[in-house]
Amino acid sequence: MSLSQQMDLMLPKIEDELHRQIDRLDQPRLRPFYEMLTYHMGWFSNNKNTGTTGKRIRPILLLLVTSSCNPEWLHAIPAAAAVELVHNFSLVHDDIQDNSPLRHGRATIWHKYGIPMAINVGDALFTMANQAILDLSEGSFAEKAIQAGKILQNACLDLTYGQFLDMSYEKRNDMTIDDYWAMIEGKTAALLSACTQIGAILGNADESTIDQYRIFGRDLGLAFQVQDDLIGVWGEEALTGKSNASDLMEGKNSLPILYGISRKGKFARRWTASGLSQGEVAKAAQMLKEEGAYDYTRLEAIRLTVRASDALRKANPKGEAADALAELVNKLLVRES
Amino acid sequence: MSLSQQMDLMLPKIEDELHRQIDRLDQPRLRPFYEMLTYHMGWFSNNKNTGTTGKRIRPILLLLVTSSCNPEWLHAIPAAAAVELVHNFSLVHDDIQDNSPLRHGRATIWHKYGIPMAINVGDALFTMANQAILDLSEGSFAEKAIQAGKILQNACLDLTYGQFLDMSYEKRNDMTIDDYWAMIEGKTAALLSACTQIGAILGNADESTIDQYRIFGRDLGLAFQVQDDLIGVWGEEALTGKSNASDLMEGKNSLPILYGISRKGKFARRWTASGLSQGEVAKAAQMLKEEGAYDYTRLEAIRLTVRASDALRKANPKGEAADALAELVNKLLVRES
Repeated sequence: MSLSQQMDLMLPKIEDELHRQIDRLDQPRLRPFYEMLTYHMGWFSNNKNTGTTGKRIRPILLLLVTSSCNPEWLHAIPAAAAVELVHNFSLVHDDIQDNSPLRHGRATIWHKYGIPMAINVGDALFTMANQAILDLSEGSFAEKAIQAGKILQNACLDLTYGQFLDMSYEKRNDMTIDDYWAMIEGKTAALLSACTQIGAILGNADESTIDQYRIFGRDLGLAFQVQDDLIGVWGEEALTGKSNASDLMEGKNSLPILYGISRKGKFARRWTASGLSQGEVAKAAQMLKEEGAYDYTRLEAIRLTVRASDALRKANPKGEAADALAELVNKLLVRES
Repeated sequence: MSLSQQMDLMLPKIEDELHRQIDRLDQPRLRPFYEMLTYHMGWFSNNKNTGTTGKRIRPILLLLVTSSCNPEWLHAIPAAAAVELVHNFSLVHDDIQDNSPLRHGRATIWHKYGIPMAINVGDALFTMANQAILDLSEGSFAEKAIQAGKILQNACLDLTYGQFLDMSYEKRNDMTIDDYWAMIEGKTAALLSACTQIGAILGNADESTIDQYRIFGRDLGLAFQVQDDLIGVWGEEALTGKSNASDLMEGKNSLPILYGISRKGKFARRWTASGLSQGEVAKAAQMLKEEGAYDYTRLEAIRLTVRASDALRKANPKGEAADALAELVNKLLVRES
């Protein structure tokens, strides 16, 4: 079965479970609160999927791993909902922390409802993630729910430390490449690694297979982030300066930029002097390329992708989900936007 | 054994477990993040208890309930840490939402480190609470950890809905007394009810005893909040206007104030006209008293206390913890500050 066929099968089930979790707050007195949650999830009263729901990559990855260990994957649905809810909780809080008014072209929760309400919406989504992972105990053994819960919470703590590192270096310009790896390990890799690990546990995989899936998820996350950083400087939107899409304007802690700073050349001098205007972005990207940042970043992305593929091969995925998994990896890592 | 003897026994164990949970972030790279957490918990590097740690009422209540069902209570320590961590997570986020610069005379986390960092500190504390409750699986059966986890998460969701109600009515002056009960059920009663319920489960109590403890915790929480609201208007600090301690100045959603508004008399007209200055607080409190708000609030506190005591009697607490539990109830409900 192709990835898109698998997704057609899995996505409606994921969306139903997300609804089931969030509907805990569907009460008359809480109507405006419930609407904040459904707004963030990209749902509208009569139309579940309008293209604003996000890609649901994490739950799909989790279910594909379960399904590549064992044909049964329906019992893993609450875990799939849990990782998506954790992702969304972190988006809601990140948007406040980064002062971002827009996400996918729509007003962010804090921008629409204010910071106090947005903090509370994030807290509710996190709580629902915790409820969803405990719901695993209904379909599986309690021990598996505990195991999955512990992995998920470790990933959540990693998210907070990644976020801490990101925020502390925001205005300092002295993040090292070592700090960068620690940061994206927490911010991006930890949750993807939790997805693949939990997926394998719920697929009844043996210890060594679970471990290979854990490594696969982590390296996939790292590769994904590095590729994202590449697109953030040299992607089409970044170069043409559409909607401030360049990481060079945002002053993000991004691998090519940190590499450029570490070179202490022309780019580093220009970077330290003052912020870049939209008109200077293409030239700064060119400067970075000439100093080797593009090649360095591209090589890192390839190195991590090879490592991820190697772990996936060792995990030995089986059945129809195996092809879909390989296709998903390709889609995430060989993308231009 | 008296309450203070029980506390001497339990508090060091609670504090050690809180340290064990929070020390997950005690890493060289994360030093400033770890310091934010220990600062909030009231710890300083060489001196664990300096009187700034808060009263740890929730974990004490939980352990006393366990201990009044069964002499063994040490295995319940992770749950005690979990409820205290949830309480602290909610304080950190509440202080941002309420724009409070001080707590117990010390700068709040957001005031000291900024809103983005404070959101992250709260998220980390919540995560650690989730980790602590799952740690129950090490000393108890996995099923008990799942059961306790579900109760704790339900209470967390209730916290978010109570917080939502509080915030939505903040600037509107049209909260009804019905809304008030729903709000404090979420904001105060839910977590205390989770403490007593989890305590009973970990004390291996039977279903009907667990249920009586659940009711006891909820009614204790409601009575506690109503008593707090009474002190917030007529307590000594409130009347003398020390450090803006009066709920009348803060415009809080408090029971006597809502009662006064519902009377539509002199107080309601003065209240609706404009905010009160420090000099007007004592007079407004007197006005409220004359319109019956003091008697109404006091009677509600007594009604709820009787209901709580009744449930506690039905739960039939045993052993030395039983006396301490009764003493704790008295201490919480017959207080003046």
